[in-house]
Amino acid sequence: MQPILSMEADILSIIKLTHGGGGRESDILIKDVFIKNFFNDILNEMEDAAVLDLEIHNRGKLAFTTDSFIVKPIFFPGGDIGRLAVCGTVNDLLMRGATPLYLSVSFIIEEGFDYNELEKISASMAEACREAKVKIVAGDTKVVEKGAADGIFINTSGIGIIPEGVNISIRNAKPGDVVIISGTIGDHGIAVMTKREGLEFQVPVNSDVAPLIDMVSNLLELKEAIKVLRDPTRGGVAEVLHEIALGSGVGIEIYEECLPINKSVAAACSLLGFDCLELANEGKIMAVVSKEKAEQALDIIKASPYGEKAAIIGQVNDSGMVTIRTAFNVSRMIARPTGEALPRIC
Amino acid sequence: MQPILSMEADILSIIKLTHGGGGRESDILIKDVFIKNFFNDILNEMEDAAVLDLEIHNRGKLAFTTDSFIVKPIFFPGGDIGRLAVCGTVNDLLMRGATPLYLSVSFIIEEGFDYNELEKISASMAEACREAKVKIVAGDTKVVEKGAADGIFINTSGIGIIPEGVNISIRNAKPGDVVIISGTIGDHGIAVMTKREGLEFQVPVNSDVAPLIDMVSNLLELKEAIKVLRDPTRGGVAEVLHEIALGSGVGIEIYEECLPINKSVAAACSLLGFDCLELANEGKIMAVVSKEKAEQALDIIKASPYGEKAAIIGQVNDSGMVTIRTAFNVSRMIARPTGEALPRIC
Repeated sequence: MQPILSMEADILSIIKLTHGGGGRESDILIKDVFIKNFFNDILNEMEDAAVLDLEIHNRGKLAFTTDSFIVKPIFFPGGDIGRLAVCGTVNDLLMRGATPLYLSVSFIIEEGFDYNELEKISASMAEACREAKVKIVAGDTKVVEKGAADGIFINTSGIGIIPEGVNISIRNAKPGDVVIISGTIGDHGIAVMTKREGLEFQVPVNSDVAPLIDMVSNLLELKEAIKVLRDPTRGGVAEVLHEIALGSGVGIEIYEECLPINKSVAAACSLLGFDCLELANEGKIMAVVSKEKAEQALDIIKASPYGEKAAIIGQVNDSGMVTIRTAFNVSRMIARPTGEALPRIC
Repeated sequence: MQPILSMEADILSIIKLTHGGGGRESDILIKDVFIKNFFNDILNEMEDAAVLDLEIHNRGKLAFTTDSFIVKPIFFPGGDIGRLAVCGTVNDLLMRGATPLYLSVSFIIEEGFDYNELEKISASMAEACREAKVKIVAGDTKVVEKGAADGIFINTSGIGIIPEGVNISIRNAKPGDVVIISGTIGDHGIAVMTKREGLEFQVPVNSDVAPLIDMVSNLLELKEAIKVLRDPTRGGVAEVLHEIALGSGVGIEIYEECLPINKSVAAACSLLGFDCLELANEGKIMAVVSKEKAEQALDIIKASPYGEKAAIIGQVNDSGMVTIRTAFNVSRMIARPTGEALPRIC
């Protein structure tokens, strides 16, 4: 029989199959890492399901979303898989005009994964939750044998309350509306890719991963002038433009010269043959706004955290096509992204 | 350039990285497999987050839970990973007395995974959803490169409404209360293990995986007589007994002779050295019920689907210990499960 102390130390050095077994070691891991980092009364009940009391809210509609994160590497310039997992789901709730409230988190961890890294990831999630003003209220941990997963995968699901009268949807764009992006594009894609491939640029590129809670809640004060909100993650700006065009039955033209792009990102794209419009962003919104309120919306975004470099980048039309007007004043089609330029980007 | 038709065929034969790329192939996969199987108006909106209108419900409290499923093999006697993923989350909601309403589902799939198997799994999920009267309203798909995951992992998160006055919690057990199990124990654990190891018994063991919606909703008609509900999954009956004892600050004694066990499961346990009390179940509840209503609760469970072999198996006391009274009338301690007898069981 092993002395208790050495068993405890053993448990705390690496993640093992037993950490996902649902018994005592699971319990230690949950308390030592997850409860400690995510602490709140509801999570601390450790019941099978979290009970959410909505009586204090004005009822209304809920938003509910889910995302699994498989990014490689798990630590990258400007962020990590934990921050990404919180921000991704928070932002998805915001894109419906919801106030994010509660998250669930579920880990699939490879046997042998470093305990300290899990701790770092959990701390990063907790910090992102504080910034986004959300609580993780339900969780799950599974451990699989070595070789059956690549390090760690994280699922987050989220619930938010949609205030009365708010109606944000990809179906709302109308010809004449204006398209705004909240900052430079492609930063997350290039940050992850360069780290993965061991590339270096003179000016390093950081991921933009961030929860956009303040930006969106300020923007929503413009009420029905805000038609569509969408975060250009996988598939990038190009994919979102197509989704809006399809969803609203409209066309969109964007202006190449107006696109905010970091110099290093632009350099990486031309060097490596990536289309910046297809690169993933994790801390940007695209907003379709009525023309009358476009400048006001732009000012609000610019005054928000993470919105400094926002720009009006295009306009909705009735062509049914997604096009870009180049610096030479030529309009060309933007293809819907196909294939997978950068796998494991989020 | 590839002819369109052969490209389509290619897309439909195996899962590739591009199926998780967020672009066109993702779109095809989502429509062809997931929307088709899970169809409902909310999911079909394909927004970033599902909007849940709760106005038609009597507001009240929500339950919200999450679980990732990594079972190996993904098809086993009596079920598959898809049915498991739906039932696991539905049952977790039921264990708080909630009426399950909405699920999210998130897939992590290994490149090269068989498309038809994904189709089968999705169909199985859809069937389980119909049986459990829940809707999948949000989803996500990620694909990782060959070797970075083992086939398929599925996360489900769920939301349910808790009717006014319902208060089911592991904190509610009181000395004198009675412990009921809704049927034979260990079936899921043995079914998965025998399939994985290629073992065969004269009478094959099927997993008990099932959504327990009718059983629980009938049981809840006994109101506050129902104190605790818990599904003995990972860690089995032994783990749940310890969680209740800890959560309620009580002791529990169960009676060995009363435990319903399939003969093949008992044989497998003695042959292979498993403790049946620690084996996972996926279609059973343990209920702590006031003594006065215990027989009535037992009758309700027995009359429900999946509850035919229910039995009263023990009683709550004030010893602070979890014990089993053997056939020889000796009382011995039940240890809290530790380690991982059967990894990847759910």
